Amino acid sequence: MSAVGVAPPTRDAVVALARRTQDTVCAALERLENGAASFRSVAWTRPGGGGESRFLRDGDVFESAGVNVSVVHGLMPPGMAALATEGRVDVGTRGLRFWASGVSVVIHPRNPMAPTAHANYRYFELLRAGRSEPAAWWFGGGSDLTPSYLFVVDATHFHSVHKTACDRHDLGYYPRFKRACDDYFLLPHRNERRGVGGIFFDRLSGDDPAGLLGFVTNSANAFAEAYLPIVERRKDLPFGVHERAWQLLRRGRYVEFNLMHDRGTQFGLQTGGRAESILMSLPVSAGWRYEDEPPPGTEEAKLVHVLRNPREWL
Amino acid sequence: MSAVGVAPPTRDAVVALARRTQDTVCAALERLENGAASFRSVAWTRPGGGGESRFLRDGDVFESAGVNVSVVHGLMPPGMAALATEGRVDVGTRGLRFWASGVSVVIHPRNPMAPTAHANYRYFELLRAGRSEPAAWWFGGGSDLTPSYLFVVDATHFHSVHKTACDRHDLGYYPRFKRACDDYFLLPHRNERRGVGGIFFDRLSGDDPAGLLGFVTNSANAFAEAYLPIVERRKDLPFGVHERAWQLLRRGRYVEFNLMHDRGTQFGLQTGGRAESILMSLPVSAGWRYEDEPPPGTEEAKLVHVLRNPREWL
Repeated sequence: MSAVGVAPPTRDAVVALARRTQDTVCAALERLENGAASFRSVAWTRPGGGGESRFLRDGDVFESAGVNVSVVHGLMPPGMAALATEGRVDVGTRGLRFWASGVSVVIHPRNPMAPTAHANYRYFELLRAGRSEPAAWWFGGGSDLTPSYLFVVDATHFHSVHKTACDRHDLGYYPRFKRACDDYFLLPHRNERRGVGGIFFDRLSGDDPAGLLGFVTNSANAFAEAYLPIVERRKDLPFGVHERAWQLLRRGRYVEFNLMHDRGTQFGLQTGGRAESILMSLPVSAGWRYEDEPPPGTEEAKLVHVLRNPREWL
Repeated sequence: MSAVGVAPPTRDAVVALARRTQDTVCAALERLENGAASFRSVAWTRPGGGGESRFLRDGDVFESAGVNVSVVHGLMPPGMAALATEGRVDVGTRGLRFWASGVSVVIHPRNPMAPTAHANYRYFELLRAGRSEPAAWWFGGGSDLTPSYLFVVDATHFHSVHKTACDRHDLGYYPRFKRACDDYFLLPHRNERRGVGGIFFDRLSGDDPAGLLGFVTNSANAFAEAYLPIVERRKDLPFGVHERAWQLLRRGRYVEFNLMHDRGTQFGLQTGGRAESILMSLPVSAGWRYEDEPPPGTEEAKLVHVLRNPREWL
């Protein structure tokens, strides 16, 4: 949590970062589509803020991609506020006001050899009634990769680019945020991570807000470099109905995680967020199969092994 | 909750009801498949019980159907036990032991004109350490219908059969359990019920356990009569890609409800249940579409209107 008297990063800078990231990611995906599909934008408002959702579907490369910016405020109930501040801030009996802005990205390519990816960068303030200086502020975010088929070189590349962004700020960030990512994206009832991880950070605060904003900016900039080369080298690989069916099962797991465990989804829906924008993360199509354990020795089993036993990629 | 000194329904009778219902429903569905598909059975055990899962997939009529019997026991944490007994029973600091048995049925037909259906009948006991007489016992269950296209005659038939089963025991049951069903199967973030309802009851206890067992037995017996005639008259109706796509979206909503709100799913997964059996309720295929509100005046809009405005069917 923030130290008393430290000025928080300006809200304007955070909103600008979210919008810039939205522009950059959307433009990069459209370049890959080469005219076959483009983003449609919807500006939305709710009592307490608004945002801009951009969605692309039925592309040659991407089955769907959602890139959403939001700038929202409202009342955070005492229980949720106590949880968010880990008990370090007096949240009173009525909870605290919050102000939050962020960008979230979920991309589902068509080819089962091209992984799904997610990125999210956000900034939060909790405020007491009548006070403009936040009682607490923090950054959260990260990015993770969800392949249906394991290519070690892809996972290594994705992690490597994010590590470089982390290392510019703190050599301790990458190992810490890599582990946090493996811990966070866990489906306990499946004993599986949702993918090969990446970085995940939350409640990042302290006495150097400008430095933290710089770190989050560099992380957000790293996403396109980490992800798009992977899509480029996998998007035209041959595949058949077997690989497509497996991809749909993996997307089913993605749905399970997002609906059951994802904090952003739960926070958004519980605080009256726009359901359509929040659930943009869900794939156009997903599947389930009873007893879907792949036979040992297959490519599918190789992926599941890594999901059950997170690996150091670097 | 049970009155002190009233003997609870015997566990044997409850398990027998669950097994009989499993046999009856599976046989009826296989008759409709006429040799095209049959149930595969898996007996499973876990520390604290076991059960038998039966699953049918890729039939001519049914894309998937799961019928699961479980007989389980374990420790219910204090929070969950307090919730389950609505604070009326001292749950101590370590929670209470539970014993539970039930049958659950989820059926996803192939034809979008044929509705999905769910039924569940269960019996619970909470027990204090060293005591064999339960501190609380109750029945729960019900059945509900989830069409992709609205046929008023189907909804009326489904409700009517269940009302008849209710009326044999208590004229107050149907109106109460019909309303409880509309309340329970609500997706708040969509402001939609998951279907046209049915009956839903929980924590049904009292001083006439044999009578309640009779009611639950009659409800369970009503399910096949309520549901199968609907499938028979819809399973061969013509449909195209448009209707199929809409069915997948409705199944996406089914997934949202089951993963986010269904108490049985959450109880099962949180108490270490067999994930594959619990998630048998999820469809083989489902979909999501950003901004999926159907145009006014369409058959799809007619359904959504009813999901937002529950109706009296009788």
